[in-house]
Amino acid sequence: MRLSRYFLPTIKENPSEAQVVSHRLMLRSGMILQSSAGIYSWLPLGTRVLKNVERIIRQEQNRAGAYEVIMPTIQSADLWMESGRYNAYGDEMLRIKDRQERDMLYSPTAEEVVTDIGRKFMKSYRDLPQMLYQINWKFRDEIRPRFGVMRGREFLMKDCYSFDLNFEDAQKSYRTMMEAYMRTFTRLGLKAVPVRASSGPIGGDMSHEFQILANTGESLIYYDADLEKLMETETFDIEHLMGLYAADEEMHDAKNCPVPQDRLKSKRGIEVGHVFYLGTKYSDPLKAHIIDKGGQNITVHMGCYGIGVSRLVAAIIEASHDDVGIVWPASVAPFDVALLNLKPDDEKCTKASDDLYLKLQQHCLDVLYDDRSERSGVKFATHDLIGLPWQIRFGSRSLESNTYELKNRRTGEVLENVSWDNLIDAIKGPHKSCCS
Amino acid sequence: MRLSRYFLPTIKENPSEAQVVSHRLMLRSGMILQSSAGIYSWLPLGTRVLKNVERIIRQEQNRAGAYEVIMPTIQSADLWMESGRYNAYGDEMLRIKDRQERDMLYSPTAEEVVTDIGRKFMKSYRDLPQMLYQINWKFRDEIRPRFGVMRGREFLMKDCYSFDLNFEDAQKSYRTMMEAYMRTFTRLGLKAVPVRASSGPIGGDMSHEFQILANTGESLIYYDADLEKLMETETFDIEHLMGLYAADEEMHDAKNCPVPQDRLKSKRGIEVGHVFYLGTKYSDPLKAHIIDKGGQNITVHMGCYGIGVSRLVAAIIEASHDDVGIVWPASVAPFDVALLNLKPDDEKCTKASDDLYLKLQQHCLDVLYDDRSERSGVKFATHDLIGLPWQIRFGSRSLESNTYELKNRRTGEVLENVSWDNLIDAIKGPHKSCCS
Repeated sequence: MRLSRYFLPTIKENPSEAQVVSHRLMLRSGMILQSSAGIYSWLPLGTRVLKNVERIIRQEQNRAGAYEVIMPTIQSADLWMESGRYNAYGDEMLRIKDRQERDMLYSPTAEEVVTDIGRKFMKSYRDLPQMLYQINWKFRDEIRPRFGVMRGREFLMKDCYSFDLNFEDAQKSYRTMMEAYMRTFTRLGLKAVPVRASSGPIGGDMSHEFQILANTGESLIYYDADLEKLMETETFDIEHLMGLYAADEEMHDAKNCPVPQDRLKSKRGIEVGHVFYLGTKYSDPLKAHIIDKGGQNITVHMGCYGIGVSRLVAAIIEASHDDVGIVWPASVAPFDVALLNLKPDDEKCTKASDDLYLKLQQHCLDVLYDDRSERSGVKFATHDLIGLPWQIRFGSRSLESNTYELKNRRTGEVLENVSWDNLIDAIKGPHKSCCS
Repeated sequence: MRLSRYFLPTIKENPSEAQVVSHRLMLRSGMILQSSAGIYSWLPLGTRVLKNVERIIRQEQNRAGAYEVIMPTIQSADLWMESGRYNAYGDEMLRIKDRQERDMLYSPTAEEVVTDIGRKFMKSYRDLPQMLYQINWKFRDEIRPRFGVMRGREFLMKDCYSFDLNFEDAQKSYRTMMEAYMRTFTRLGLKAVPVRASSGPIGGDMSHEFQILANTGESLIYYDADLEKLMETETFDIEHLMGLYAADEEMHDAKNCPVPQDRLKSKRGIEVGHVFYLGTKYSDPLKAHIIDKGGQNITVHMGCYGIGVSRLVAAIIEASHDDVGIVWPASVAPFDVALLNLKPDDEKCTKASDDLYLKLQQHCLDVLYDDRSERSGVKFATHDLIGLPWQIRFGSRSLESNTYELKNRRTGEVLENVSWDNLIDAIKGPHKSCCS
């Protein structure tokens, strides 16, 4: 992508309305623009990151054996009356009347609609287990939307729902999804802590939140110090992890806490995922029944599993930035590498930069090519701000030596005299291939 | 994908509510489920097709130089008041009050929001030309939603918007997008006719619809018989095509038609795309101004370009089906090939089918593996209904001969004694590679 032709409206000044660093950096790097309170447009750079996050989540949902569906954003109130949530949900639900004066609503979540799909098509024990997920926009009419896309009103969510024959099978689905979540967050470059949680308006008997530790988090979590050590090892043994104490504020009971005081830690966290064992909370009132092996009519056991997709983009920035800008993990970076032509007025350097731009693309790299007529300092600042993992700084020295100058955005290290082969190896890393 | 574990709720009987063949076949093949009037859930098979259509549209939008963005579905009424459309749009606009009693609406299209993005960030002639597109859900509160996803209320749309310095540049963007549309529809296996059209509530000075000729279409179009001949040649010379007469009912003027009566034809069509040169219809009231080369403040010239993504799925079926089911073009088929184990109770045959299933996947093919304990007749009917391009019918004969029986769903031809190499070549076709 030639930056001179791209739509990347970066902002130099810190926007006054942004209280947290992710909001500030997303506005400054031209990722989003507020449309109305708690509602944002995603500009090209932000859209690229969001789509990368979405892709990783989709791959891990598919790998876990869930099938993708799309449920409507506008839903009839009837189903929600059947479950009893239409009146119970409160003011966060955006209620709508259509032109025929029918009561509709904008989906804040989709248990009712998915249970309706289940009861229509799942009739026998042979039809289970089943997991269906979607990645779609939701709306919750927050009274105080804030922190940019971290707590917006319209947000992108991955919501998955499991259907099982009984409690034991439902626990297996729950575990499968927990494991998928750990893989997902690891691939996104995040360390997420699974925390015992209350189930809130979704309901159900068992629930875990996935929390990213960050000072700007809205949740307070209590956990065993051993958990931090385990997370450091980078080998997530999920059984071990779930055996350690971690609870949110509501679930934590200081008096009866099994962890001794000197090992109990507390930190703020950003909730990026939430899983629930629902039991028959929805399948009972909506009559999602199947015939079991013995010919009996039984109620299916359900679970639901959410990930805040748009919120994750902000959470990744909260976890990965420095004083001058964003530091994207390679897996979600909007481009693999920035190529900075430091002598845009020099014909020879520009010709060589153009050639390098093509050559990098032929190696299946997504390149943001800074071909603007700007000073080097301006280019350095732009690319430190938008935070691609690598910057190739191409100027007279490269032209003369036929080697490259490569900046690692995370470490800040600038490697000089890098050969072509080493350049490609560094940018591609151990995993990136053409097919990935 | 093992069909025994997949979620594919096919229906044997013709659903009474479906009046057109695409609606009937989408319900019968378990692609969609009605959620409320004109609003559908997309089940796994339907979601796969929709995502394939989306992917091709996205690739061609990117190739045309447009950048992907995401604009909110819920928009403030303020912007629409600024453009004057809030009161003018009529009952098809879903109007909403949020919990603060602010007037909001569900986006039926996004000229206002994108013009707002333009006026905030495009300040100079150097910032143009620019094209921004999104693929997102829209809502139009049709008084009579019908024909399934063909005329639903909630629908997936690709909408692109161009920003140019003047009329001449805007014409170039318009032409670029016309060409992208021709490539897109060709890749989707469709012959779409560009038709001069009236601009309706979107407005503007010039407009073309893209119509798929089909008896079930809602539009009546008049065109030069030469146009059909040109479309048959499969080499779309867009200049030539646009030189030939084609107009919708509203634009067609029988008295002043330049085509002699004996060459004038009329047919029904399904509108799948619509492009508009908007001029300054939105940029004027919303004050999207830029500084031109001479330092003058001028109003940008805009265009907008829509494709009905979810409607296209139905349109493809209208154009490509037979008496027993759907016939998917390979580019959008939910899987590349069906593998039918015709002896599911035979251990040897099942082992060999299982092996073949793995081997096909190793060749980067998406395989729907019918491993159900069902009679061959049932399996044939299922796969003719859901319409994958190829069916491998694996039974005793294949097991003994070490060759394959391959059905071409489009021609109905069943090839026997097919070697492994010929099997792979046939299914992959000339273009499919691992990276595609």
